[in-house]
Amino acid sequence: MDELDYRFLCELASQLRVDSVRAAAAAGSGHPTSSMSAAELMAVLLARQLRVNVENPADPANDHLVFSKGHASPLLYAMLKAMGVVSDEELLTFRRRGSRLEGHPTPDVPFVDVATGSLGFGLPVGVGLALTARRLDRLPNHVWVLCGDSELAEGSMWEAFEHAGHEGLNNLTVIVDVNRLGQRGPTRHGWDLGAYAARLGAFGWHTIEIDGHDPGQIDYALADARATRRRPTAIIARTCKGRGVSAVEDREGKHGKPLADAEQALGELGGPRSPLTVPMTPPASQGAPYRYAGGPLVLPKYELGDEVATRTAFGEALAALGTARGDVVALDGEVADSTKLETFAKAHPERFFEFYIAEQQMVAAATGMQARGWTPYVATFAAFLTRAYDFVRMAAVSRAGLCLVGSHGGVSIGEDGPSQMGLEDLAAFRAVHGSTVLYPCDANQTARLVADMAGLEGIRYLRTTRGETPVIYGPDEEFPVGGCKVLRTGGQATIVAAGVTVHEALAAADLLAGDGVSVTVIDAYSVKPLDSPELVAMATATGRVVTVEDHWPEGGLGDAVLSALAENPVPVRKLAVARMPGSAGFADQLRDAGIDRTAIRDAVLALLP
Amino acid sequence: MDELDYRFLCELASQLRVDSVRAAAAAGSGHPTSSMSAAELMAVLLARQLRVNVENPADPANDHLVFSKGHASPLLYAMLKAMGVVSDEELLTFRRRGSRLEGHPTPDVPFVDVATGSLGFGLPVGVGLALTARRLDRLPNHVWVLCGDSELAEGSMWEAFEHAGHEGLNNLTVIVDVNRLGQRGPTRHGWDLGAYAARLGAFGWHTIEIDGHDPGQIDYALADARATRRRPTAIIARTCKGRGVSAVEDREGKHGKPLADAEQALGELGGPRSPLTVPMTPPASQGAPYRYAGGPLVLPKYELGDEVATRTAFGEALAALGTARGDVVALDGEVADSTKLETFAKAHPERFFEFYIAEQQMVAAATGMQARGWTPYVATFAAFLTRAYDFVRMAAVSRAGLCLVGSHGGVSIGEDGPSQMGLEDLAAFRAVHGSTVLYPCDANQTARLVADMAGLEGIRYLRTTRGETPVIYGPDEEFPVGGCKVLRTGGQATIVAAGVTVHEALAAADLLAGDGVSVTVIDAYSVKPLDSPELVAMATATGRVVTVEDHWPEGGLGDAVLSALAENPVPVRKLAVARMPGSAGFADQLRDAGIDRTAIRDAVLALLP
Repeated sequence: MDELDYRFLCELASQLRVDSVRAAAAAGSGHPTSSMSAAELMAVLLARQLRVNVENPADPANDHLVFSKGHASPLLYAMLKAMGVVSDEELLTFRRRGSRLEGHPTPDVPFVDVATGSLGFGLPVGVGLALTARRLDRLPNHVWVLCGDSELAEGSMWEAFEHAGHEGLNNLTVIVDVNRLGQRGPTRHGWDLGAYAARLGAFGWHTIEIDGHDPGQIDYALADARATRRRPTAIIARTCKGRGVSAVEDREGKHGKPLADAEQALGELGGPRSPLTVPMTPPASQGAPYRYAGGPLVLPKYELGDEVATRTAFGEALAALGTARGDVVALDGEVADSTKLETFAKAHPERFFEFYIAEQQMVAAATGMQARGWTPYVATFAAFLTRAYDFVRMAAVSRAGLCLVGSHGGVSIGEDGPSQMGLEDLAAFRAVHGSTVLYPCDANQTARLVADMAGLEGIRYLRTTRGETPVIYGPDEEFPVGGCKVLRTGGQATIVAAGVTVHEALAAADLLAGDGVSVTVIDAYSVKPLDSPELVAMATATGRVVTVEDHWPEGGLGDAVLSALAENPVPVRKLAVARMPGSAGFADQLRDAGIDRTAIRDAVLALLP
Repeated sequence: MDELDYRFLCELASQLRVDSVRAAAAAGSGHPTSSMSAAELMAVLLARQLRVNVENPADPANDHLVFSKGHASPLLYAMLKAMGVVSDEELLTFRRRGSRLEGHPTPDVPFVDVATGSLGFGLPVGVGLALTARRLDRLPNHVWVLCGDSELAEGSMWEAFEHAGHEGLNNLTVIVDVNRLGQRGPTRHGWDLGAYAARLGAFGWHTIEIDGHDPGQIDYALADARATRRRPTAIIARTCKGRGVSAVEDREGKHGKPLADAEQALGELGGPRSPLTVPMTPPASQGAPYRYAGGPLVLPKYELGDEVATRTAFGEALAALGTARGDVVALDGEVADSTKLETFAKAHPERFFEFYIAEQQMVAAATGMQARGWTPYVATFAAFLTRAYDFVRMAAVSRAGLCLVGSHGGVSIGEDGPSQMGLEDLAAFRAVHGSTVLYPCDANQTARLVADMAGLEGIRYLRTTRGETPVIYGPDEEFPVGGCKVLRTGGQATIVAAGVTVHEALAAADLLAGDGVSVTVIDAYSVKPLDSPELVAMATATGRVVTVEDHWPEGGLGDAVLSALAENPVPVRKLAVARMPGSAGFADQLRDAGIDRTAIRDAVLALLP
């Protein structure tokens, strides 16, 4: 690097710092000190290593930059200004209503793939982006992730370090901004760069320890990172929080607030300057991403009356969908033999990704893959998807499209006991913004919904059942999302069920017929969106409703039905799992939970006048 | 170790193996092969190092044993039989309805502190138990954790390794059963013990690599682990899954199922034998656990009309509660300055635990602490508690008592944007079995509820608000859990609000009075349990209800109200956050979300006949 380059980089770093301070000052909030520590790191990356087509943020050959420390958003926005993507005027709209420059980055901002701000999310997404480039898109672009040192306390980061090391993702570089200070005080390891290097080295990473304010060292490290083979690289950079302004530099209590005296700070940072614009290096390759061929969709068909587990139908349908659509990929949490994702794995091994028991990394990787145009299906036990609930939340903030499939829903799994039972999944996924929640009761219905969910947007969740259930629908029946199926029509009550309880509801209707009571039975396979018009019509016609679900009483099917009927109400009795289950067989579990045919019959009879 | 000891240990290991096979055979399901790999490890631990008072599982001086690989429950139950705690007859009730020997262990079983079965949970709880012994109980007992090699893919394990290493918990030993095979295939590292040792060594642990089927090596390692100072120890043991039975030993596809030919297997394992009972070594110390003194409860009092954030009141009330109750401890996720837990930290530094940004370890540690009789309060942003949702679920399966406090609820936080907003917390925590969900709207109410929640059972969740809200209750007002407050009485509609929307509801009532419409306003601070009788009475009296909440529309206050009115319905209109928010100020956020006073007024007017 020659003297001119060096001075340009120093000047660019100062500009990024100045703009971070200005943005936070204009907003009256934000995280300038967390931005200032990484100003040189990002200045050198921008000017010397980040290869993007500034005109086209969607260029598949672009490098990716993920701010895993999303609170350093002023620095990111200052970089976009230096790239000529954001004007100075827009920069100063930071955190204002209607501005795309929110407190934490979202994909509304050019060159941002995912929302960050929940620490520990960005790096695992970066792993997903790097995996996508390597194994799916087959493009040589590089993924750069800026993360904080505090953030390394999150377990999800170590899921990511392990996975990237295992995969040998040399197209991934993490830059750790070791500024020593977290939100409320010093981190565990302070400026002990060796503590981080030892850990990352043990996880199979190439590590470089540098002074994060020295452009020369940074430049060397970034070039070395790009050139490294077979291993991902971590640049562990010693920095000062609030660098460059004495009132805040390396001081506690200065996190997440604008500088008290921005004028004075700007003076200390060198005062007004003529703004630099960085001539960005475009990507070397212009290649299109690899795509697998598709074909006609030939879904599996199941015979009426056969006993087939919906998880089995899921696996077979997804394998068929993978043949029809080259964009479909599958991610496993080391339970593909249980979820039946293994059927896809056998049919399409090159689009199957094993994440071992690391549910957060699995969901984050899927979020990265969908950002690059792939359609990921993620499957594990419904109970264990709760491990990644924050990441699903962040995926929704990222406007990501994910297909999540949770197997082993409810007490119906039997002997394994409550730790393995998904009993809060419907509530959890209903409460995700823009989500779709599906819960099929038979194999043909499952196959259709598995295929159809690929075409939806946002977070889609489908729950499968462990045990076998009878096939009650023909293979050509359609199941529109937002619809329902009226399986019986009777005048005295409406029973709304989904999944495993549909079969109990049908049996209860038979029992009630023996009692001289005629009921309507609805299969609410689309829990969200629910078919409100049909439910209102049936509820109004019958005057009373019983809901029955293999789920805790809160937030699931019963609450969804109540919500649909809110403005046109009739009396509703909710049957759900009210006691903590233990180990027992299928029939005992449903009976003990009070969600079997007898309980449904009793509930209907109790509601009758 | 002499020859007699050696032969006894081999014989005991065989018995544990035989009993694991027998239990799974009797149940027709379960995980015998995952039990067989660790038979020698547990035999030697039982006979030579585990110090417990067999007569008294509650003896505070007992060592603790956590099966983090909870699916190896047959081995645990076989150990309890060898201890004389479980009879052979009971052993064979494994996984049967009504048996306490469930598919995965729960605290219904003697000497089991927490439920396991969601991998990655047991070790972080073990860290909590070891921290409790060291820093709270001040007792010399040792915590032994058996974990699987697959399980090391979970990020929560690395949160635990980091925390234990940082705290130097030499009273904690992890035994890693490296049997090379996960559920569906080989693990990432196979039998590369060095891969695990390098990682754990980098995290500050003392590591010992052994042959996990050699009682001599195991005995040496366990003794070394107990004697090690300043650092926790990991015994990394090479084992064979299904050891001892050729049909399953080290074979894929044998996970989680009983042996196909149990008779043949038992023959291969040495056939029938006279059962051994291990004379357990009691704990050396008989000391009582340390307890802090308490005193009278003097809660902070706030003046009517003052503007005080409920998070501030939480911090001050908890500090006061800590003075009154010596059993109260507090756990922070590196945001104590935001949650205001720092007020407790300053008042009671010895009972304040910093977990940095590791929410799963934080919740697990609290679960360990409550198992030893302490009353933990865990606080972070409501949004970030979702990171530990699976652990909260497992705490509920463990029948644990936890006080969780989520700050920064809802869009009302303002400029930070959606990644920081708790908008699904009410739904998530309502759907936890046996939970209590509280959402105060003013400082005096917060103080009371913070104190009262200590006396409840199960998972208790309290949501606080970032911004200041007016004090509307006097300091002597009481707020029973399961109650509500009727703030206005009017005949034409009932508005049900909680937290920040209570103030909007009151303002809407004023606006409506100007319109000539009189409404009832209810503060539903106890979201679960909800005051159903009062709600039904008011809803029936007024004929229509508007609910308003700073939360997504699903699973929160609105759904709770609908559920309370299910069998006595009136028309309900639910106001909630329906669009993804961005950055904006408090008032703009409420208006944009459609949950401010104007939206409430409009909803009431729309419902009127």
